[in-house]
Amino acid sequence: MSFGVGIVGAGVVGGGVIQTLQQNARAIHARTGVPVELVHVADTNPAAFKDFDLAGVTISEDAATLIQDSNVNVVCELIGGIEPAKRLTLDALNAGKSVVTANKMLLAHHGPELCAAAVKAGVDLRYEAAVGGGIPIIKALREGLAAGDIHLVCGILNGTCNYILTRMTYEGLEFDAVLKQAQALGFAETPPDLDVNGDDAAHKCQIIASLSCASQVDLEDIPVQGITHITHSDVAYAREMGYVIKLLAIVRNINGEIEARVHPTLLREDHLLASVRNEYNAVYVEADITGPTLYYGKGAGRMPTASAVVADIIDIGRRGTGEASPPFVYGPRRPVRDSGRLEGRYYLRLTTRDQPGVLGQACTILGNHGVSIASCIQHEGHSNDAVHVVMMTHDTCESDLRAALREIDQCAFMVQPTSLLWVLNH
Amino acid sequence: MSFGVGIVGAGVVGGGVIQTLQQNARAIHARTGVPVELVHVADTNPAAFKDFDLAGVTISEDAATLIQDSNVNVVCELIGGIEPAKRLTLDALNAGKSVVTANKMLLAHHGPELCAAAVKAGVDLRYEAAVGGGIPIIKALREGLAAGDIHLVCGILNGTCNYILTRMTYEGLEFDAVLKQAQALGFAETPPDLDVNGDDAAHKCQIIASLSCASQVDLEDIPVQGITHITHSDVAYAREMGYVIKLLAIVRNINGEIEARVHPTLLREDHLLASVRNEYNAVYVEADITGPTLYYGKGAGRMPTASAVVADIIDIGRRGTGEASPPFVYGPRRPVRDSGRLEGRYYLRLTTRDQPGVLGQACTILGNHGVSIASCIQHEGHSNDAVHVVMMTHDTCESDLRAALREIDQCAFMVQPTSLLWVLNH
Repeated sequence: MSFGVGIVGAGVVGGGVIQTLQQNARAIHARTGVPVELVHVADTNPAAFKDFDLAGVTISEDAATLIQDSNVNVVCELIGGIEPAKRLTLDALNAGKSVVTANKMLLAHHGPELCAAAVKAGVDLRYEAAVGGGIPIIKALREGLAAGDIHLVCGILNGTCNYILTRMTYEGLEFDAVLKQAQALGFAETPPDLDVNGDDAAHKCQIIASLSCASQVDLEDIPVQGITHITHSDVAYAREMGYVIKLLAIVRNINGEIEARVHPTLLREDHLLASVRNEYNAVYVEADITGPTLYYGKGAGRMPTASAVVADIIDIGRRGTGEASPPFVYGPRRPVRDSGRLEGRYYLRLTTRDQPGVLGQACTILGNHGVSIASCIQHEGHSNDAVHVVMMTHDTCESDLRAALREIDQCAFMVQPTSLLWVLNH
Repeated sequence: MSFGVGIVGAGVVGGGVIQTLQQNARAIHARTGVPVELVHVADTNPAAFKDFDLAGVTISEDAATLIQDSNVNVVCELIGGIEPAKRLTLDALNAGKSVVTANKMLLAHHGPELCAAAVKAGVDLRYEAAVGGGIPIIKALREGLAAGDIHLVCGILNGTCNYILTRMTYEGLEFDAVLKQAQALGFAETPPDLDVNGDDAAHKCQIIASLSCASQVDLEDIPVQGITHITHSDVAYAREMGYVIKLLAIVRNINGEIEARVHPTLLREDHLLASVRNEYNAVYVEADITGPTLYYGKGAGRMPTASAVVADIIDIGRRGTGEASPPFVYGPRRPVRDSGRLEGRYYLRLTTRDQPGVLGQACTILGNHGVSIASCIQHEGHSNDAVHVVMMTHDTCESDLRAALREIDQCAFMVQPTSLLWVLNH
């Protein structure tokens, strides 16, 4: 007897899943023992399926018909966004169908509600494709590393941002120029906001935090900074100091408290994540018993994402009549550390008038707030009478630093507000 | 009701598993829903368990008693070697108990027989710890990448060899000197043969080949070369040409044929695997739909290996009453390509007398066998009247190259046989 797959959504990922199932279903059956078979597809625009040979496959305009199809054992929600994805996911779970989704936005906003519905119905809700595309990182966190305590996850989780930062770093281009090229090449969406503002990475960060900390983490508790304010100067100063800038999602598990955030981060050039370039993603995980591990691959795209969706389908098929395991296990809710209480090293770029006493005043204000400077760069010969003063702090409390910067930014010698970036110590 | 774990073997890994279960059993239960509990341990020397608080745990001298214990749901075979590990694994499987093993030697020699026993009994045989220690690479190959066809796996799978080669590369030391230090530090066994001769990596290569090609691959069909003949000169010449030397296990899936081998390999310095240093392992996998992915971490050691063993235990516990999935799926047996038919680029180091005409004669012989030279290095000022002539070939068939080298090595100007290393093109 076959294991029937229903696909809702005829977009890029839906098409990739159809293609994978059609090309590989026999090989998958031979290798895994799971006889996956595409039995039903649905899209509000059924004409979108015209490029596929769907002989023998039911085509519907609405997800409800697909969910009610008794031949469908697992429903793949591949339409994205909150609604109607949420409604159809809940309907499928409530109807006793397992669901595979690639929808990080939906999980990040409504994970606990969906999780409760899956547990109540005793079915699976799987989401490997929601984070890291073709990299089986959810499986690694959920199963592969299940024996130990994960205390740090650092991920490059947005391929568009990594592509832009890579080209800024190695080709000396400015953000806007690279973004335009990336859009022309199809590496960036139009509008690009969800990616470059950090929101897509934040959705994935929420999922990773909930999973690796076994506690419900709310999206609102994750501070997010995108990459739109990063200039080529920042990238160049960072390299001068031996660092590269990456947009990181960081989750830390510290003495029962959780730290989760997304922001551009300076990484030492010899850090494993520093060599992850272009559209690639990677996740660095430290657990008590394994030490550091790293997972690398393509974080998006039609076929890598389809790989993750189909791997989830196979897992559910393999489970057979066994008990489903909950998509998330939320233990006692643990506090998420307020960003003001973060501690670390910081990169500061002050843009000031070229006049005597500036460095002294800035450093005095920092010192008054207990912020100690580890290194400083000021080059000759800036244009427009403005100079950059770049500093790297020692470990400091972010709220102290921000108080100092509020004072500095009000000084008459400042031309622009200070640019502040986090530095990874690990 | 708890899920009872029995451990056979009080060695380093057995101790790590006991420690993990004792420290983390409650957390594992909370996070995964699997109530793992250590119920029975066995070792021919039960005194070896004296460092653990085993109140409430049965201690036996023989594995048979442990296997017969009705409280034991899963048997962990952690004694290593072929016998009695094979006998007890078969006994456990035949008694209807799932088995978790870290024993790559046993699997590489007797995988098909053990697999058949597990399938017949309808129980699990899991072996995450046999390859890559704390890196969940078996899970990635078996489940995470199950939707596509894997066509290349390149692994740094022996931490001892990688440690030795790293220190030779970055500290300019000779093999013997590093090996002695590694033994003193506990990074290398005494005697070191299983590691430095490549056999340990070959065992892991056999497992990866069987898994990723879904075909039975015999250990005898895997050509193995260790690292004992690598000199500091080779490492230095490689770096001069922009390469580093790593011991790689390579599995390729080419048009229905399988290529599987273990040997020192030149990798371009910017290859992801080139930056894997010291005792770390990494596996690079290319599949049709995901493209390249990489998995990195500690490949050995008490706690990383325990992490893999316990993750397998949790998976078996999660399965509950569901059907076990076969440890290996052997499809139709596909041919393993004979090493003479390998094609690739090669590094050659000739040690010759310093006399006129040597380079011409050597290159003529290579040319007569259709071997084309891509680059060549010969430095002035060697001692003992012997000089190194180092060449990198274009793509060539290994049997042609070896025929040429047999001829060259018989020439009067040769001081030592030619040193031959494979070069990775990917």
